[in-house]
Amino acid sequence: MRRRLNIALIGAGRIGQVHAATIANRVVTARLCGVYDPVLSAAKSMADRLGISKVAPSADAIFQDDVVDAVLICTPTDTHAPLIIAAAKAGKHIFCEKPVALDLATTDAAIAAAKLAGVHFQIGFNRRWDSNYARVRAAIAGGEIGSLRTLHITSRDSGPPPISYIKTSGGIFLDMTIHDWDMFRFLSGSEIEQVYVQGGVMVDAAIGTAGDIDTHITLVRFESGTLGVVENCRQAGYGYDQRVEAFGSLGAIQTENNRPNSAVISTVDGVRHALPHHFFMTRYTDAYACEIEGFVDSVIQGKPVAVGGDDGRRALAVGLAAKLSYTEQRPVRVSEVG
Amino acid sequence: MRRRLNIALIGAGRIGQVHAATIANRVVTARLCGVYDPVLSAAKSMADRLGISKVAPSADAIFQDDVVDAVLICTPTDTHAPLIIAAAKAGKHIFCEKPVALDLATTDAAIAAAKLAGVHFQIGFNRRWDSNYARVRAAIAGGEIGSLRTLHITSRDSGPPPISYIKTSGGIFLDMTIHDWDMFRFLSGSEIEQVYVQGGVMVDAAIGTAGDIDTHITLVRFESGTLGVVENCRQAGYGYDQRVEAFGSLGAIQTENNRPNSAVISTVDGVRHALPHHFFMTRYTDAYACEIEGFVDSVIQGKPVAVGGDDGRRALAVGLAAKLSYTEQRPVRVSEVG
Amino acid sequence: MRRRLNIALIGAGRIGQVHAATIANRVVTARLCGVYDPVLSAAKSMADRLGISKVAPSADAIFQDDVVDAVLICTPTDTHAPLIIAAAKAGKHIFCEKPVALDLATTDAAIAAAKLAGVHFQIGFNRRWDSNYARVRAAIAGGEIGSLRTLHITSRDSGPPPISYIKTSGGIFLDMTIHDWDMFRFLSGSEIEQVYVQGGVMVDAAIGTAGDIDTHITLVRFESGTLGVVENCRQAGYGYDQRVEAFGSLGAIQTENNRPNSAVISTVDGVRHALPHHFFMTRYTDAYACEIEGFVDSVIQGKPVAVGGDDGRRALAVGLAAKLSYTEQRPVRVSEVG
Amino acid sequence: MRRRLNIALIGAGRIGQVHAATIANRVVTARLCGVYDPVLSAAKSMADRLGISKVAPSADAIFQDDVVDAVLICTPTDTHAPLIIAAAKAGKHIFCEKPVALDLATTDAAIAAAKLAGVHFQIGFNRRWDSNYARVRAAIAGGEIGSLRTLHITSRDSGPPPISYIKTSGGIFLDMTIHDWDMFRFLSGSEIEQVYVQGGVMVDAAIGTAGDIDTHITLVRFESGTLGVVENCRQAGYGYDQRVEAFGSLGAIQTENNRPNSAVISTVDGVRHALPHHFFMTRYTDAYACEIEGFVDSVIQGKPVAVGGDDGRRALAVGLAAKLSYTEQRPVRVSEVG
Repeated sequence: MRRRLNIALIGAGRIGQVHAATIANRVVTARLCGVYDPVLSAAKSMADRLGISKVAPSADAIFQDDVVDAVLICTPTDTHAPLIIAAAKAGKHIFCEKPVALDLATTDAAIAAAKLAGVHFQIGFNRRWDSNYARVRAAIAGGEIGSLRTLHITSRDSGPPPISYIKTSGGIFLDMTIHDWDMFRFLSGSEIEQVYVQGGVMVDAAIGTAGDIDTHITLVRFESGTLGVVENCRQAGYGYDQRVEAFGSLGAIQTENNRPNSAVISTVDGVRHALPHHFFMTRYTDAYACEIEGFVDSVIQGKPVAVGGDDGRRALAVGLAAKLSYTEQRPVRVSEVG
Repeated sequence: MRRRLNIALIGAGRIGQVHAATIANRVVTARLCGVYDPVLSAAKSMADRLGISKVAPSADAIFQDDVVDAVLICTPTDTHAPLIIAAAKAGKHIFCEKPVALDLATTDAAIAAAKLAGVHFQIGFNRRWDSNYARVRAAIAGGEIGSLRTLHITSRDSGPPPISYIKTSGGIFLDMTIHDWDMFRFLSGSEIEQVYVQGGVMVDAAIGTAGDIDTHITLVRFESGTLGVVENCRQAGYGYDQRVEAFGSLGAIQTENNRPNSAVISTVDGVRHALPHHFFMTRYTDAYACEIEGFVDSVIQGKPVAVGGDDGRRALAVGLAAKLSYTEQRPVRVSEVG
Repeated sequence: MRRRLNIALIGAGRIGQVHAATIANRVVTARLCGVYDPVLSAAKSMADRLGISKVAPSADAIFQDDVVDAVLICTPTDTHAPLIIAAAKAGKHIFCEKPVALDLATTDAAIAAAKLAGVHFQIGFNRRWDSNYARVRAAIAGGEIGSLRTLHITSRDSGPPPISYIKTSGGIFLDMTIHDWDMFRFLSGSEIEQVYVQGGVMVDAAIGTAGDIDTHITLVRFESGTLGVVENCRQAGYGYDQRVEAFGSLGAIQTENNRPNSAVISTVDGVRHALPHHFFMTRYTDAYACEIEGFVDSVIQGKPVAVGGDDGRRALAVGLAAKLSYTEQRPVRVSEVG
Repeated sequence: MRRRLNIALIGAGRIGQVHAATIANRVVTARLCGVYDPVLSAAKSMADRLGISKVAPSADAIFQDDVVDAVLICTPTDTHAPLIIAAAKAGKHIFCEKPVALDLATTDAAIAAAKLAGVHFQIGFNRRWDSNYARVRAAIAGGEIGSLRTLHITSRDSGPPPISYIKTSGGIFLDMTIHDWDMFRFLSGSEIEQVYVQGGVMVDAAIGTAGDIDTHITLVRFESGTLGVVENCRQAGYGYDQRVEAFGSLGAIQTENNRPNSAVISTVDGVRHALPHHFFMTRYTDAYACEIEGFVDSVIQGKPVAVGGDDGRRALAVGLAAKLSYTEQRPVRVSEVG
C-alpha cells in the first residue's frame, strides 16, 4: 500500500472543514494527523467527527510534531504569512488558502521563506482542478479554437458573506475576484497587463458601509493582446454561477453551470431543470479532492506544485490594480502596483 | 381585404434584397410598387424576380409617384440623410436602414425634416423585433429578474464585410456595434452614460490598414447605474453569434443562438448539434417580417413607430463616444460627444 | 416573374385555414383563386380576410372553373375520396389532407382515379417538410449513424379534439398516429411489417365512450429488421410534444421540441425555458409553407410529388393493423389487413 | 468517531474492484477487512493496492472470521445463492450483486436463508442511488407530473462484454435489462403485469451464436395501468446511454446523460459537447458510494435495506417473462412465470 502523507490542519473554519472532509472521505493518499484552531472546541469537534487523533494546543505544536509532513493553512488571511514562514522554518510542506496576504511585500516574504526552506508551497486556487476549466484550458492550449481573442468569466456567489468577514477580506478584488484573476492566467497562459473596473453596491448597502463593493464588471487586457472581461456579484438568486467562455480565431468554448441532477421537468408552468449547485462546497467537491491529491502527489514525487506562491502573488497584483482602477476610475496597468 | 401599403425600395443591394423578399413573401399588409437603384440592372433583376411593376429611373421619380405611400431606404449610409429629407418633403413615410448618418448634425437634419413633414420615420434596428430579445425585455420590464444589475451582449459576425465596405462604413462602432448600443437601450430602458473600449485588429490586418478595428470589448455604464458589456468581433468560425444575458436582483435571463434544426447527433466523435444560422438573413428572417409589419401598422393605424429617428441618434452618439474612447484609451461620457 | 399556380380550397375549417393563410402569406409561387365550404359564411369570411376573389357555390363549381389549376381538399375524411375522384376527372391537380379514407378499398379507388387522370396527387403529411425530421432522415440515409437499429417517436398533442371530431376521425391510429406511421417510413426507408399496441383511455373517459382510446405505446418491426416504438397521447400539459430518436450502429440522432424563443430564465424557483409551441399551427408553420411549395413545384416542373397516394395507403394499412392489434391484444402483421 | 463496518469482499473481478475502490476512497463509514477470490493473485493484488490486511484462502474463511460484519458478494451469478446461504448461516450481513440467481427457486432459497438468519440482505441495484433517477422518482411520488401514464427507459452499454461472459450471464433480459425492470418498479411504485419483446442480434453475430440477443425494445404494462417501454442495446458508439422519461397527466420529466464536463465547443465543424461517461464505473461513481453507505447505514442503524431480496426476485420474474415473450413471440404475463 502507498504511504499516506500526514497532513495537519491549521484553522477549522468553513474552508478548513471542506478540506478536512475531503481528505477524510476522498483522498486515499493522505491522512489528517492533527488539527489546530484558536477556538479549541471547533478543533475538538472536527477531530471527533473525522477521527483525527491529535488536537494541537498551538500552531507551533504542529510545526514541532515530527509526524506532520505538511500543513494546510485555512486561517484568516492576515495570519497566512506568519504561519507560512513558521511552517517553512520547521520544514513542513505547505498548502495555503488564497490570498497569501493583502499586500505584495508580505506575500514576497512568505514566498521567500518557502523557497529558502525548500518546501513545497501550493496556493488554494481550487478552480484550476475542476474538469470544466481544465477542458477549456486544454482547448486553448491545444489550438482547438485557434489563437485566443477574448475570455469571459462569469462568477457570482449565491449570497454574500457576513459583513464581519467583508471587513477583513481585503475587499471583493482580493477576496472573490482573486479566483478569476488566477483563472484568466490559467486559461490564457498570459499575464494581465491592464484592468479597468466599473462597479458598485447593488446587493446590500451594508457592504458599502464596510468600505467594499459587491458587483463589478472589469475589462482586462493581456500581454498577449487577448482581451478579457469578468463579471462578479456577491449574490445571485439562482445559486452559484460559475461559467467561462473563450473565443478564438477558429471557434469558441464555453462551460455551463453544473447541476445536482440532469432532470428536466415540463409542466404547464414551463420547462425547468435544477438550479446550479448552491455554493462552492457542493460545486467544487471533486475539484477539492483533485487539488489535495495534486498537492500530495507533488510532495511525494518531489515535483513542482501546479500552482505556487508566484501564482498567488500575480493574482494579488492584479487585484491591487483593480482596486486602484475602481478608486481612481481609470484604466490601471498592473506594473503600476506590482 | 385590408388595403396594402405601397412601398418603394431605394437601393437593391444586400439588405435591400432582404427587405424586398420579406415584403414579397411574408408581409401580407404591404406590396412593393417600385424600385430604384443607381445600378439599373440590379433594380431590373429584382423587379423581374419579385414581380415589381415599376423600375424607377431615379429616386426623385419615386418621390413624385403618387402611388407610393412609403419608401425603404437601403442605400449606402452617406446618401441616407439627403434621401430622407427629399422623401419627407414629398410626404412619403420613411423606413431607413441604420445608421441615419455618421455624424449627429446630419442625423438631426434628417430627423427634423421627417418631423416637419409629419411623416412616419422608422429606423432599421431589426433585432428589436426578434422573439428572443423581446422575451428578455419583457422579463426586465416585468420585474421577473428584479432590478437590473448587468447586461451582457455577445455579437459576432460569421465573417467580415469586404474592405471596400469597411472603408465607408463609419467603422465598427457605428456600423456593427450600432445594433448593440440600441439593444442596450431597448433592453435596459435606460440611457448609456459612459463607455470604455478595449479593442484591436485580430481578424484581418487589412481592416486595420483601412483605419478600423475588428474586435472589441466595451464596458458601459447606464444612467440607471446598471453596468453593461458588449463583445464584438467581425469573424466567428462557427457562425453568426447573437446572444444576450441580463442579470438582476432576483435572477438572470439569457438567450442562446437559434439553429436551423434541433437535431443532436451522438457518435464516437462527440455530441453535436447544428451550427447557429450563418448570418443575419437567415437568423432574423422572422424579425425582418415583424419589423416591416410593424412599420406598415404604424403608418396605417397612424400610431408612432416603435423605433424612430431619436433612437437612431442616441445609438450614434454612443458609437461616437466609443470611437473617442478607443482613440484616446480612456473612459468617455456620451455627453462629451452628443 | 414566375407564373403562380391557381389553387382553390375545398373546406374552410381548421386545417383549411392553416393552408389558406400559408398560401396567402408565405407561398410566392401560388395564389388562392377560389374557396368552397358547405358553410357558406365560413368560405365568405375567409375570402374576405385573405382577398380570395371567388367564393364557389359548390365543389363542382370549382372543378368546372378553368382558372383553377389545383385543389386543396381539407374537408372531413369521408368526403376525401369522392372529391379526389371528381377533381381527377376534371383534370385538377390534387393536394389532400390525411388520411385519404378510413378503408383501403376507397383509398385505392381514389389513387386509381388520380393515376388514370394523370394529375399530381399529394398527401398532407406535413412533418416530412420540417427541418428537424429532414435532418434525421439525412443522417440515416447518409450513413452518419451507421445501420439503423431502432427508431423512437414521441408525439403528443397539447389537448384532445372535441368528442364530435373523435367520433368521425377513424380513431387515434388513423387520425393521429397516421403521421407517425408515415414518419417511420420516411425516416427508415423501410416498410412496417408488424405492430403491437398497448393503450387505453387516460385523458378523458368520454373518448372511451366514443369508442376510441387516447394514449398508446406501439412497438413496430420493420421489414429491414429495424425496431420502432411510438408513444402517442392526446394531451400533454406542457404543449405539443414532437420528437424523434434514431439509433444506429455508429451513433444516434435525436430532435428536441422547437420553442418560440431560446431564452432561459434562472431564479430561485429554478432554471426555466419556454414551453414548446402549443400546437401544429405554430409548430409547423415553416413545414406547411415548404409542403405547399413542394406541391406547387411538382406541378409546375412536372416532377413526381414527394409524398403521394401510395404513401397515404401504406400509412393507412399500418393504422388498420394497429387497430386490430389493440382489439385482439396481439401482434399483427400489416399483411393481415393490407 | 463513528464505528466503521468491517466488510469483506468475495470476488475481486470488475464489479468487485468498483466496490472495493468505492469503500476505500469514498465510504467513511466502512472499511475493507478482507478479500477472497478463487484467483489468489487477483485478491492479493487488490489487497496490496488498497491496503486490505487479510487475503482469505476461501469464502468459508471469511464467513468464520469474527472481525467480518458483512460480506460483499461479487462473484459469477451461479455462486451467488450458495454464498448467500453460507453467509447467512454465519450471521454475516449480505450485499449481493444482481441477479441473485437465474431461476426463482434458487432465489427464493437465498431469500429464505437471509430471512431465517435475520441478517440484512441488499441487492446491488446501483441506479436507485443515482441523483437523476431519485429526482424522477420524487417527481412521480410527489405528484409533480400528475398520475403516471408512461415510462420510457433508454439503456445502452458502450460495448458488449466478452462472449465468455455472455454465455453464463443468463442472457440480456436477466443480466442487463434486470436493472431496467427494477428501475420501472422503483420509479412507478407499481408491479409489471405483462411484457412483449421485439429484439434481435444487431451488434455481433457471436452473441447470437452464444444463444443471446443484443438489442431489444420491450413494451411493458403495469398493474396500475401505466405503460412502459425499455430500449436496450449492448453497444452504443457514443458511450453509456442512461436516460429515462416519465409522462403523466400534468407533465413530463426526463433525464439527460451525465458528462465528464459541461464544456461546449463551437467551430466550423459544429457545436459539440463531451460524450457521456463511457461506462458504469465512471457514470455511477457517486451512486456506488451512496449504495454502500446506504447498506452500511441500514446495518448500523438496524433499519430495513432500501432494496432487498424480494426486489431482486421480482426483477428476475419479469426477466424470465421477457425471455419467454422473445422465444414465443407473444405478450407474456409475469404471473405465467412467477
